[in-house]
Amino acid sequence: MAVLPQKAFGLAATDTSGVLSPFNFSRRENGADDVTVKILYCGICHSDLHSATNEWGFTKYPIVPGHEMVGEVIKTGENVEKFKVGDRVGVGVLVGSCKKCDLCEQDLENYCPELILTYNNTDRDGTMTYGGFSDIIVVDQHFVLRFPDNLPSAGGAPLLCAGITVYSPMKYYGMTEPGKHLGVAGLGGLGHIAVKLGKAFGLKVTVISTSPKKKAEAIENLGADDFLVSSDPVQLKAATGTMDFIIDTIAVMHHLTPFLDLLKVNGKLITVGLPDKPLELAIFPLVLGRKLVGGSNNGGMKEVQEMLDFCGEHGVTADVEVIRMDYVNTAMERLAKADVRYRFVIDVANSIADL
Amino acid sequence: MAVLPQKAFGLAATDTSGVLSPFNFSRRENGADDVTVKILYCGICHSDLHSATNEWGFTKYPIVPGHEMVGEVIKTGENVEKFKVGDRVGVGVLVGSCKKCDLCEQDLENYCPELILTYNNTDRDGTMTYGGFSDIIVVDQHFVLRFPDNLPSAGGAPLLCAGITVYSPMKYYGMTEPGKHLGVAGLGGLGHIAVKLGKAFGLKVTVISTSPKKKAEAIENLGADDFLVSSDPVQLKAATGTMDFIIDTIAVMHHLTPFLDLLKVNGKLITVGLPDKPLELAIFPLVLGRKLVGGSNNGGMKEVQEMLDFCGEHGVTADVEVIRMDYVNTAMERLAKADVRYRFVIDVANSIADL
Repeated sequence: MAVLPQKAFGLAATDTSGVLSPFNFSRRENGADDVTVKILYCGICHSDLHSATNEWGFTKYPIVPGHEMVGEVIKTGENVEKFKVGDRVGVGVLVGSCKKCDLCEQDLENYCPELILTYNNTDRDGTMTYGGFSDIIVVDQHFVLRFPDNLPSAGGAPLLCAGITVYSPMKYYGMTEPGKHLGVAGLGGLGHIAVKLGKAFGLKVTVISTSPKKKAEAIENLGADDFLVSSDPVQLKAATGTMDFIIDTIAVMHHLTPFLDLLKVNGKLITVGLPDKPLELAIFPLVLGRKLVGGSNNGGMKEVQEMLDFCGEHGVTADVEVIRMDYVNTAMERLAKADVRYRFVIDVANSIADL
Repeated sequence: MAVLPQKAFGLAATDTSGVLSPFNFSRRENGADDVTVKILYCGICHSDLHSATNEWGFTKYPIVPGHEMVGEVIKTGENVEKFKVGDRVGVGVLVGSCKKCDLCEQDLENYCPELILTYNNTDRDGTMTYGGFSDIIVVDQHFVLRFPDNLPSAGGAPLLCAGITVYSPMKYYGMTEPGKHLGVAGLGGLGHIAVKLGKAFGLKVTVISTSPKKKAEAIENLGADDFLVSSDPVQLKAATGTMDFIIDTIAVMHHLTPFLDLLKVNGKLITVGLPDKPLELAIFPLVLGRKLVGGSNNGGMKEVQEMLDFCGEHGVTADVEVIRMDYVNTAMERLAKADVRYRFVIDVANSIADL
């Protein structure tokens, strides 16, 4: 590993066990366009688990996960006018892109072929990127977000990945018209924010889940209008052709046809989970009902900022369980069993010294 | 079978052999809103073959196929002002819908839950509908099209199904911006019209086919800009990420992933064929490139008229092989082997007496 001027410390996985251990490393000097951020809180995303255990096959160890950071600016480069020391900021999934391709020019850095992810990617200087399970991070100002005053740090941190992952397709695929009916399939980190965003946009929201026991929670706590048990053929049949859109947050193998059947003509099924094997797609319902299955991955920096501002205005935050750094391995185990309501967020600044 | 006042004669299949035999039947009296049409030409669509042999499992015998008719008005009801005796008109896939649902009100009769197909459906009076492999047809004026003077009857007939099937998704999914790059997968009845429509909209068009021998034809005769052999991994790789849209006209099992890989970020893959088994859909390319797979089925009456007018203006017609009624069984056999360039059209009026 290259030795860089800014010392850093965090938690890293070093093999496919995914177990995280204390890790001393270094970050680049704060450049003219850079902001150095002291990390206050960092959410734990399902991708962190996939990546730490190399489930997708892309991991280069050691890996420091974490891409839902809220922190405080402690250094700014000479070209940085947007941020000053002491500002509360966010850092999400991206820390770099080419800035000159068509996609970057359309504020779609998240689809730039040269995008640099916050961890497990090669940075412009050839070093590896390390994520937010750590004390500090150095980021090009273009990839730093203003964190609205009306958003709490812990509850707001997961918006930087989970939030934008559901917000962006809702905007792109035209799913924000008040009164329309949104189904949210899977009630985890992404799903519970999709419910809240749906309500903030004025939609009717139905949660679609295999677990009947989540019903009360979905309706009473999250504000969903209805709840559909996806393993119950009677409920599915009764709801046939009633939904305008479905956001499918399920990250494992599942059937798309029941969801397509829930959609009205012109309905849209948007997948944001990443099952590692192909799913079966029946063509008849797609053709006969002019339906579509679309994907979406995160959002560009301009849209992430817009989403944070929208969530601040509408009081949309994640329901979180705040944990300390020394609990992260336990949290990852619980996450693997979906035992969290709905997002772990690490209180990094107040607990990293205990490691 | 009910005996109705207007005698009719045509070709019907009576079992899953799909073999068509002379068939005497009857049609309803011409009502106040009806137009009776003497059929001049009728195209043979792949659906006619699927239906005659009950491949989709929906067929009720006897079945008179044919839903690409050009004919001459021979009777009009008292409420009919749009058409007069002697007018050249078209009849396509639909002959009825509820006319009052949301979809009908949006000119999407083709997605109306009570739509009545031109053949093999139950009509409003409880009788079966019979298609265009016959001498006359009686149709509610709402489902009769003005056939533009600048469109030839034989070459224009296939537009009533094949034409609208590719035109409608091009409009709905926003695939008409000049200079964009369209892939057309499968070069049959639908595909060859998609190529011509793509060129009429000012797109760059690449034909994607398993048959290298179609290359010269696609480029020289149909006006395609490029040709890609889909079984050649080197060609596929070179074309990765180059297309804005693909219209997939393939009606049998095939792989979607290679087509998704040909698309740029935000690319759209539109399926208009109807494979009877589900296809495999890889979620990673969908999510990582914000791509979508959408379906589309025919078009509403207003859009069919718009399409006919557009094709008249731009000289878009099908390449047809005109046949006589007594050749239809042979034509169906050749169609099953894809041995037609690109559409059979029956010269009904001049050959039905020979049966």
